[in-house]
Amino acid sequence: MTTASDTHVDVIVIGAGAVAENVADRIVQGGLTAVVVESELVGGDCSYWACMPSKALIRSGMALRAAKRLGGAAEAITGELDVAAVLARRNSFTHDWDDQSQVDWLDGAGIALVRGHGRLSGTKEVTVTSSDDSTTVLTAKHAVVVCTGSDPLLPGIDGLKDTQPWTPRDATSAQSAPASLGIIGGGVVAVEMATAYASFGTEVTILARSGLLQGQEDFAGDMVSASLRELGVDIRRASPTRVESTTEGFAITVDGEVLLVEKLLVATGRAPRSSDIGLEVVGLTPGDWIEVDDTLKVIGSDWLYAAGDVNHRALLTHQGKYQARAVGDVIVARALGNPVDDARWGAHVATADHEVVPQVTFSEPEVASVGLTSQAAEKAGYRTRVIDYNLGYVAGASLQADGYKGKARMVVDEKRRVILGVTFVGQDVSELIQAATIAIVGEVPIDRLWHAVPAYPTMNEIWLRLLETYGRPGS
Amino acid sequence: MTTASDTHVDVIVIGAGAVAENVADRIVQGGLTAVVVESELVGGDCSYWACMPSKALIRSGMALRAAKRLGGAAEAITGELDVAAVLARRNSFTHDWDDQSQVDWLDGAGIALVRGHGRLSGTKEVTVTSSDDSTTVLTAKHAVVVCTGSDPLLPGIDGLKDTQPWTPRDATSAQSAPASLGIIGGGVVAVEMATAYASFGTEVTILARSGLLQGQEDFAGDMVSASLRELGVDIRRASPTRVESTTEGFAITVDGEVLLVEKLLVATGRAPRSSDIGLEVVGLTPGDWIEVDDTLKVIGSDWLYAAGDVNHRALLTHQGKYQARAVGDVIVARALGNPVDDARWGAHVATADHEVVPQVTFSEPEVASVGLTSQAAEKAGYRTRVIDYNLGYVAGASLQADGYKGKARMVVDEKRRVILGVTFVGQDVSELIQAATIAIVGEVPIDRLWHAVPAYPTMNEIWLRLLETYGRPGS
Repeated sequence: MTTASDTHVDVIVIGAGAVAENVADRIVQGGLTAVVVESELVGGDCSYWACMPSKALIRSGMALRAAKRLGGAAEAITGELDVAAVLARRNSFTHDWDDQSQVDWLDGAGIALVRGHGRLSGTKEVTVTSSDDSTTVLTAKHAVVVCTGSDPLLPGIDGLKDTQPWTPRDATSAQSAPASLGIIGGGVVAVEMATAYASFGTEVTILARSGLLQGQEDFAGDMVSASLRELGVDIRRASPTRVESTTEGFAITVDGEVLLVEKLLVATGRAPRSSDIGLEVVGLTPGDWIEVDDTLKVIGSDWLYAAGDVNHRALLTHQGKYQARAVGDVIVARALGNPVDDARWGAHVATADHEVVPQVTFSEPEVASVGLTSQAAEKAGYRTRVIDYNLGYVAGASLQADGYKGKARMVVDEKRRVILGVTFVGQDVSELIQAATIAIVGEVPIDRLWHAVPAYPTMNEIWLRLLETYGRPGS
Repeated sequence: MTTASDTHVDVIVIGAGAVAENVADRIVQGGLTAVVVESELVGGDCSYWACMPSKALIRSGMALRAAKRLGGAAEAITGELDVAAVLARRNSFTHDWDDQSQVDWLDGAGIALVRGHGRLSGTKEVTVTSSDDSTTVLTAKHAVVVCTGSDPLLPGIDGLKDTQPWTPRDATSAQSAPASLGIIGGGVVAVEMATAYASFGTEVTILARSGLLQGQEDFAGDMVSASLRELGVDIRRASPTRVESTTEGFAITVDGEVLLVEKLLVATGRAPRSSDIGLEVVGLTPGDWIEVDDTLKVIGSDWLYAAGDVNHRALLTHQGKYQARAVGDVIVARALGNPVDDARWGAHVATADHEVVPQVTFSEPEVASVGLTSQAAEKAGYRTRVIDYNLGYVAGASLQADGYKGKARMVVDEKRRVILGVTFVGQDVSELIQAATIAIVGEVPIDRLWHAVPAYPTMNEIWLRLLETYGRPGS
């Protein structure tokens, strides 16, 4: 190794995904200098292999099915979803996996970029190895922020590691739809990709030992299962015992029978991308999630921070970006000797990570939730009341689609009379959840929510129905 | 006139529209007895001639156009909107203008119904004249609530009163689409019906002296105008000077030329339905809006209340239903001697009527707003900051539709650092507004809203963009 250069900046960010970009942006906007270190595409998984391509693969089929559920519109639809056109539209959102526009954004924002693999190599020091094996030593005056994200976790199924299954990256970037697709896993990636590929005419089989969407309210997984089955998806509560390559794809042994599929997507969880970033140099264990406090500072360090998936607080792009704003600003405040606002809902803490994380699954139907599920609230020791309502009974939903099926649940903290969590399942519910997020974060009392009148006839009238089911104040 | 019967109840409600139904329901749930008096269909305008049929006429075309804006889905749509099927779907929502299901609901809720025209005839007394001219005298132990709603206002255009133009009722209940439709007016009804009929292939001309959607942020009317023009609607900032009937429809003299249309919809505002309800008996003026306090009690009376359009506070179904809950509960509280909660956001006042009224116009594009516009806030004396953002720049919107056009405005009270008003214009924004309503009603500080993380990639990320444009706390 030769040291090609030696660069001093205020803050080094390892990674250049959405979270890293936001950290660096806050640093620069605060008047300090920042460099991001990236060995892959600037913009990261979310832009190229997750949120954006995933929703692009789903949206066209979803909108077409929505129109088919309406008298007058259904009659106008005589053709099928054009899969090639959907894939082309997806390619436009990922800019054909070219990160020039994001590099331009970094330039415009005044953020330096070093291409290569970054490893912590000392106190406030990161050594970057480029693709040509040259190295650059970066030293930070104030802080280093690890934003390396996470990788898919491969389960220990006999034979699996000798095959080349699809990772979520392959599923979101495929340039054609396979005739058949096996999916191991029942989480967000599994159901979103099942929704997309089923709409492309692919024969999809989901193998999910614990059912779909574990961790959400039970009815979410049940309703998505029922709906995916209507789309032709075969869902089995089973674990494969063996996977082998065949000339035409994969042979999966499950429940004693052998399932043959052209492609196999493994989406069974995430592991921290921390095994080769020099964690041992700072006394941490490579391959572990990095534990941080609410200002995203690594426990025991005064200069090392971690934001996004790698800290394991909430593995979602929007939540990582939220952490990024807090960590960028707190590093600037600490560097300049400005006041640090680390009170419960202060500007320099990611408080919402604990109990107010929103999540949308763009499956058929959509699942949108925020805060604690009824089970999680119970487990956390809250005295709760759980209010359910059939979303299909709301006038706005019946107008939205003929035969609308949906459900809403609100979990109330009976002591403080504020909402702890809300889950919506149904067509087009993804935009309904922000109201719940604001109600929970704002700790708006239930009695006050009666004055937040939903417009008629929108689906948001579900709010009135949930409140009516809960009961009027004083009654 | 013969007095057929004489009935005593706790509370008499004149009218049986959505507002009246909700008043009576709260009364009965509070343990008192209630009767509703109705000369038309139980369920009122909203169910049969406004919100429900209107949105039903619009929704199918809107969903079809949404699908056409997506690569992959557009290719599947080869036919046209089936107008007959849309009208049939609308008929199903209005139950072919049969109110039996609503009568059944009254029965189930324990609310008595007297069919006929109700007039105040004394203190706590209403005389009902039936279609066969028999009369019933109703006496209330506690209160009478006027929920008669409003009627369309016919402007004083030369010749107009000698023709038979469409009222909003005719437009929402038509059983076929005319070849051409003139619309006088530029408000919600005008743009919604223009959107619906333009999508049916009707040649639509709007005559709106002051442009579209007056009272909303200026850009709302501008964007809706541009979009309706793309749908083929002719929009003229002009007032007709004369209207005549012709053998084939209407001849409208406007700007010196004569416009010939098959049908003419007049939608230029509303007048209180109070000219023939005995207001003179209680010292009020027939034909006036009825002035009430925040508990919806008529000023100067201790037993007469008015809720919904007729009190002129906010002419919207959802806001009338909100008033209905307050007035129903306060009448019960006063009758039973229970505490009355008439503090600012108490259970017995309709506080939100003043500055937190949400409104959705289901036009192309949709307009969703709540609270004060920038102009109204200025006029009310607030020290404001106005934040604008292009909704099309939000990743979630770009996924929602190719070439997404939209705009958001947030009006902030700089003294209290809370939101006063929000307006969204764009495809599918109708469900976005409830979050703003909760933020305003909850008086959630701007700094706290940073913790209400919008899920990525939804259109609600507009919240993050608005906050970023406003500026981070401390920066």
